[in-house]
Amino acid sequence: MPRHPRLDPLADRYAARTHGMKTSEIRALFSVVSRPEVVSLAGGMPAVTALPLDAVGSMIGELVSGMGAQTLQYGSGQGDPRLRERICDVMALEGITDASPSEVVVTVGSQQGLDLVTRVFVDPGDVVLAEGPSYVGALGVFQAAQARVRHVPMDDDGLIPEALEQALLECRAAGDRVKFLYTVPNYHNPAGVTLSEPRRQAIVELADRYDLLVIEDNPYGLLGFDREPMRALRARDDRRVIYLGSFSKTFSPGLRVGWVLAPLAVREKLVLATEAQVLCPPSLTQYAVARYLDTQPWREQVKHFVELYRERRDAALESLAALMPPGTTWTRPDGGFYVWLKLPHGLDAKLMQPRAVTAHVAYVPGIGFYADGSGQEFMRLSYCYPEPDQIREGVRRLARVIEAELDLHSTFDGVDTGTFRAVSGGQPGIVGPATSDRYGDRA
Amino acid sequence: MPRHPRLDPLADRYAARTHGMKTSEIRALFSVVSRPEVVSLAGGMPAVTALPLDAVGSMIGELVSGMGAQTLQYGSGQGDPRLRERICDVMALEGITDASPSEVVVTVGSQQGLDLVTRVFVDPGDVVLAEGPSYVGALGVFQAAQARVRHVPMDDDGLIPEALEQALLECRAAGDRVKFLYTVPNYHNPAGVTLSEPRRQAIVELADRYDLLVIEDNPYGLLGFDREPMRALRARDDRRVIYLGSFSKTFSPGLRVGWVLAPLAVREKLVLATEAQVLCPPSLTQYAVARYLDTQPWREQVKHFVELYRERRDAALESLAALMPPGTTWTRPDGGFYVWLKLPHGLDAKLMQPRAVTAHVAYVPGIGFYADGSGQEFMRLSYCYPEPDQIREGVRRLARVIEAELDLHSTFDGVDTGTFRAVSGGQPGIVGPATSDRYGDRA
Repeated sequence: MPRHPRLDPLADRYAARTHGMKTSEIRALFSVVSRPEVVSLAGGMPAVTALPLDAVGSMIGELVSGMGAQTLQYGSGQGDPRLRERICDVMALEGITDASPSEVVVTVGSQQGLDLVTRVFVDPGDVVLAEGPSYVGALGVFQAAQARVRHVPMDDDGLIPEALEQALLECRAAGDRVKFLYTVPNYHNPAGVTLSEPRRQAIVELADRYDLLVIEDNPYGLLGFDREPMRALRARDDRRVIYLGSFSKTFSPGLRVGWVLAPLAVREKLVLATEAQVLCPPSLTQYAVARYLDTQPWREQVKHFVELYRERRDAALESLAALMPPGTTWTRPDGGFYVWLKLPHGLDAKLMQPRAVTAHVAYVPGIGFYADGSGQEFMRLSYCYPEPDQIREGVRRLARVIEAELDLHSTFDGVDTGTFRAVSGGQPGIVGPATSDRYGDRA
Repeated sequence: MPRHPRLDPLADRYAARTHGMKTSEIRALFSVVSRPEVVSLAGGMPAVTALPLDAVGSMIGELVSGMGAQTLQYGSGQGDPRLRERICDVMALEGITDASPSEVVVTVGSQQGLDLVTRVFVDPGDVVLAEGPSYVGALGVFQAAQARVRHVPMDDDGLIPEALEQALLECRAAGDRVKFLYTVPNYHNPAGVTLSEPRRQAIVELADRYDLLVIEDNPYGLLGFDREPMRALRARDDRRVIYLGSFSKTFSPGLRVGWVLAPLAVREKLVLATEAQVLCPPSLTQYAVARYLDTQPWREQVKHFVELYRERRDAALESLAALMPPGTTWTRPDGGFYVWLKLPHGLDAKLMQPRAVTAHVAYVPGIGFYADGSGQEFMRLSYCYPEPDQIREGVRRLARVIEAELDLHSTFDGVDTGTFRAVSGGQPGIVGPATSDRYGDRA
């Protein structure tokens, strides 16, 4: 399988955007994590088998038998009107009470929503602001659009407003065109942190003051462990915030149904862009989601998912606290799927990966979540998919690997072996990872 | 609904590609053709109710109940391996016997396949060669990619190789970068013609001589009325031909399952591009297609579709021959969905459209199928969706509208009213429509 084909006769014909495309850190792990002996803390797969599969199967079968003329036929580019109505009901749970179905575009997962927004707004060379770290799939979109990504640091309360303002001022001084801020405010992927209430207000105010467009990506908002859903940024500003939603975590990722909520003028551009990209989203999957919301106890199902993920989060945090060597720190998510772990000084998660795989545990190295190659000292641990016992076993294996690395490292202490890289000191406003002390230390 | 919003506060922020996006001639008709009193010869919707809906419903329901862990979960960006195997079996019916599942990328309809290929190869300003007329959805993709489209004339035997060579020579002389030829060889949308066997060979030879990449888009290849499927261009050249396939016409468009067959190096780029766009295609729809091919008599179903479309084609051609006024010409498809009709000299299909809608018949004006605004004298008539009686009634209404236009036109004969535009004389190699005498005249 020629990942670097020696003879690609078409190599000189690709578009400029194609040359920068590279395999994500997550896909690179695919063959590893599918081995049964490996405990994977790498993937972000929801626990779909917790769904009432018989009921969902009957429901979808009946949609085809009884409504084949609609569910097997082309639909509109904007998406099924009934589904768009129900999407507005879902968004109301996070305080978005003024959305109209006409402002909603159904997409093939929220990934396509972000791609469409980016295509509509971003020319090559434009700047996109994004948290550091940021969702790896978003970085892929920005790369494909030939955008320049400028990371803005986070801490345990999410994106730091002062750092955002500094980034805006510096971009303005440099003459950079900032097209938007991309942010995941709830149960961040990969950082596991949530934007606090005061910061939500501060960021909306900054958006207003600097006339900044904000892309709010919110796949995990209903998956909070300890509280009611927080009020979305879009609920505070309907002109400057474009909202991305998804049914991948509340129902099923295999249906690939997401959406964009955008002001009407932008909505129209998004529809034109999606028609050029896929004509229309699949009808069957849209009808399936709308019928699921209409006829199944979906809020109770979300509560069930939350209980399940909470138990797994607890298994992860308890075993991390019990087993990780000193100097290791991590975030404490109160929702969503991910823990963001920082290795002791001098260790590199990517370099350590082969030893982890040998020890039968997998994670995603932090560098995948930065556009600039930083993040070496970080890794993402997912607790969404494995059972609690597997999570504990995975953390146990990982702790041993880190300890072995530390032993090796101390042997070479003070000697620059060329293997260990220095941890970059994250200064607010500078592209790069968040500073270590901004993440919650081990209790 | 602000199609031209007076106050779009974000109007100065869109990407360059966004400014050229416009509503297609087909979508502009949407509100018209959904009115029950209108006979629509406009849409290209397959006759999905001819499917065994109960069997398909049971099959899909069981896929969810029994295999929810797979069908409701994320899949790989390249697409389900089992489906990619079956896709190779399907392509073998058109002579592509050397394809490997590893060279196949499953896409959200072949529309996404074309979008991915275009993203991977085309920079703004690059030239794409395409038949004149060409598939409207392809023109949307090329526009979004800021490509320049150069139309190459067709006649009843499809794309004219001499015209293709002339276009290549002229592009070479002008220093234009031609990224590929986009062609629909079978039962062309909208022209209804099929590339003849000798021309297939000629075009593959030209591709070789001029080192030209060919994108072969083949949604209708198995829908021939009078013969076995023709041998694909890809069956003749596996290095320079990238093949796009679709299950929208042989099974269901509402599932949005298409594919690209490309050399491995290109395949890898396409997978990276699709991961950035949608992460992965929907799992459920892929499993549905693979299971359908595995367990249902799908070749017999295609024969059933063919009989149904043949009957509708006959209704269209017979009533056109019986009713159309002299000077009207049209193509005689022997497969697929479309007739391409040329109005008598001086008439304009777009200008005539309001009168046709008043007379309760809808078609797609030809200008939608040209990137350069030509094609005024043409229209596309679809016979795939209405029943034969409706088709006959629609053609009857259309004939009356054309006759009324001719009466009006003769009243103003010789007077330039500013309403009727001259028919552009299609010269081979020049961007514009095919010449009138190249299409089959009324018998």
